[in-house]
Amino acid sequence: MMDFDAILNRVRERSPLVHCITNYVTANDCANILLACGASPIMADEPEEAEEITALSDGLVLNMGTLHRHTVPSMLAAGRRANALGHPVTLDPVGAGASRFRTETAARLLEEVRFSVIRANVSECRTLARGSAGTKGVDAGEADHTAGSEEVVALARELAKRTGAVAAVTGETDVVTDGERVCLIRNGHPLMSRVTGTGCMLSALTAACAAANRERIFEAVCAAVTAMGLCGELAHARLGPGGGSASLRAGLIDAVYHLSGQSLKEGAKYELR
Amino acid sequence: MMDFDAILNRVRERSPLVHCITNYVTANDCANILLACGASPIMADEPEEAEEITALSDGLVLNMGTLHRHTVPSMLAAGRRANALGHPVTLDPVGAGASRFRTETAARLLEEVRFSVIRANVSECRTLARGSAGTKGVDAGEADHTAGSEEVVALARELAKRTGAVAAVTGETDVVTDGERVCLIRNGHPLMSRVTGTGCMLSALTAACAAANRERIFEAVCAAVTAMGLCGELAHARLGPGGGSASLRAGLIDAVYHLSGQSLKEGAKYELR
Amino acid sequence: MMDFDAILNRVRERSPLVHCITNYVTANDCANILLACGASPIMADEPEEAEEITALSDGLVLNMGTLHRHTVPSMLAAGRRANALGHPVTLDPVGAGASRFRTETAARLLEEVRFSVIRANVSECRTLARGSAGTKGVDAGEADHTAGSEEVVALARELAKRTGAVAAVTGETDVVTDGERVCLIRNGHPLMSRVTGTGCMLSALTAACAAANRERIFEAVCAAVTAMGLCGELAHARLGPGGGSASLRAGLIDAVYHLSGQSLKEGAKYELR
Repeated sequence: MMDFDAILNRVRERSPLVHCITNYVTANDCANILLACGASPIMADEPEEAEEITALSDGLVLNMGTLHRHTVPSMLAAGRRANALGHPVTLDPVGAGASRFRTETAARLLEEVRFSVIRANVSECRTLARGSAGTKGVDAGEADHTAGSEEVVALARELAKRTGAVAAVTGETDVVTDGERVCLIRNGHPLMSRVTGTGCMLSALTAACAAANRERIFEAVCAAVTAMGLCGELAHARLGPGGGSASLRAGLIDAVYHLSGQSLKEGAKYELR
Repeated sequence: MMDFDAILNRVRERSPLVHCITNYVTANDCANILLACGASPIMADEPEEAEEITALSDGLVLNMGTLHRHTVPSMLAAGRRANALGHPVTLDPVGAGASRFRTETAARLLEEVRFSVIRANVSECRTLARGSAGTKGVDAGEADHTAGSEEVVALARELAKRTGAVAAVTGETDVVTDGERVCLIRNGHPLMSRVTGTGCMLSALTAACAAANRERIFEAVCAAVTAMGLCGELAHARLGPGGGSASLRAGLIDAVYHLSGQSLKEGAKYELR
Repeated sequence: MMDFDAILNRVRERSPLVHCITNYVTANDCANILLACGASPIMADEPEEAEEITALSDGLVLNMGTLHRHTVPSMLAAGRRANALGHPVTLDPVGAGASRFRTETAARLLEEVRFSVIRANVSECRTLARGSAGTKGVDAGEADHTAGSEEVVALARELAKRTGAVAAVTGETDVVTDGERVCLIRNGHPLMSRVTGTGCMLSALTAACAAANRERIFEAVCAAVTAMGLCGELAHARLGPGGGSASLRAGLIDAVYHLSGQSLKEGAKYELR
């Protein structure tokens, strides 16, 4: 039994400052979920300040949504600085496989930065682990949901071993692995795939959990993935009449705000292998 | 009677991937409305990947809100590529008339890209059709609401004939025309003008309908404009006590998520000329 | 007794167009709060058009969140143009003190642009007034809430005298001062600090109040700060079961939309010194 309770409480006690170099589509949701879980966000992608902002933060997320040429140097500089300082760095390789620019940037980031966590969907994970493409959009596609979970486990393991990061590959069943231990998580609700940025928000939440729990990154990632799924379930259960994807989005953040360690423990549906 | 039912259902069956080169103010809402209607969004404006992303998508929206010099080449490259591939391209000339930069960029886009749809407010349409300015902000202004609808019909027709696109000029009464057929749509609610990005969201929705219904673009645009207005009405009707413009914004996306072909058919208030 | 009633009503009568050069994290919320209060937003940060957009607007906000090198010239050009035209200019020095780039940009803006209003949190105010740093994130930190209000009053006064602007320093108790008069405002709710962009939204609202009430900027700023705090209280009071930070965000904008001059007057908790 992992101690999700303690991991979540630590985020609230330490209130880690999480530096996000991220996309403009979901930056607001990422900032709000960080505040909701008890952390603090700082979004800053200008090369001139990226390193400095990283230095005063406790954790870093590099998210490739709406990737721009001018933010790549910011990502590299911030990543190296975070590595030097021992801050956990989380990669969300949004759209890796969808364009050469994204695929190559992801490869370069993996070469020059040591990641603590990589949070990806199945096709992004496949691109990173094996170099093959086939992304359909940046939100989880149909294929991601039906992907056989044994194949996904193998892919995630490969990615973790190759990079030294904890890999969190999310889909219908989420897979978290450090290359050895594997955790399958079955929380979540299908309606979440109709809300943009649930992946980005999860990456931000993961970075907060990792920043406050550096000595147990694998457990921290499992807790974050479980929390996100559970909050999706709770938000879905609370939808009023007429409530749809936009209400789910707000409900998700509300649920993160209210989530107690106790309910996380009780609602978690995971299997450790 | 247009077959709005079939048009909407086709979006859900085909789940078109819509490439948006758009502004950072409403990008999240555009992504969420695309997901709500059954399509998938991909936001990517970096010149290095714009063409490639277009190539794997089914439709393209060029939205000029928060226009930047560096995204103009992306718009041109993506637009030409979409033209070569036969993907429908939608233009939302946000703020055309408000600055020389926007007016000239709109003109250049019209010269170098063949649009399937132009979705604009009255003053933007006037700028595009006649070169005159007078925009007051980028959200629909008072003038747009009181603009005589005969003048707007003439303007929209002019724009459609000049460009070969279906023109959708939205205001109190919406006008959709391919230069010959004219559809006046009277759905919608005034509170929608107090929510930023209803125009942008409509353009995204229109692009999704067009991408899934290439052989009947005029009808697809009429369906999208009607759906947006109707969802505004439904969202307004569902506002709880204290509900205002922010609740309407969420309710609108929720309503798009739940909208059935049947209720679209029944709630549509349009007149074909 | 200040005439908050008249100030708010004037925003609705005049519907000022507010040009925002702002960050991509909270731009949507800023646009929506401007529309909710009766103003109109225009977000435009491209150097090529910044001056022109300012010229057709009634007020300007320069917000340093997600500051980029390429928007600094836009800020300077827009600021100077607004000064030449006599439009009120509001500065939100997000993250001043967090990086040299932000601190230096704030200093340069203060040198080259005459501000009517500076809206900041305590640490940003300290950086601007005294050059010392210590920012923890860009949302109000713990320190801001416990900062002794006498120290904050002194800092705010210093800033106002040094710059000629009305300083609005927000925290648990908000301080507004033109260097002589001081207004302490005790509206607001702690949950607001768990919503990103409440500061940015307040700056936008302040700019709208100032743009519509140029002859009484101090009172306009007091009205805006009070309105924001009161709307936070109202939104909190209306939270349903399960409602958290995301519901508060929507409720806040809804409350601004519905806020009457009368309820602003009745709910205001301020003390003039």
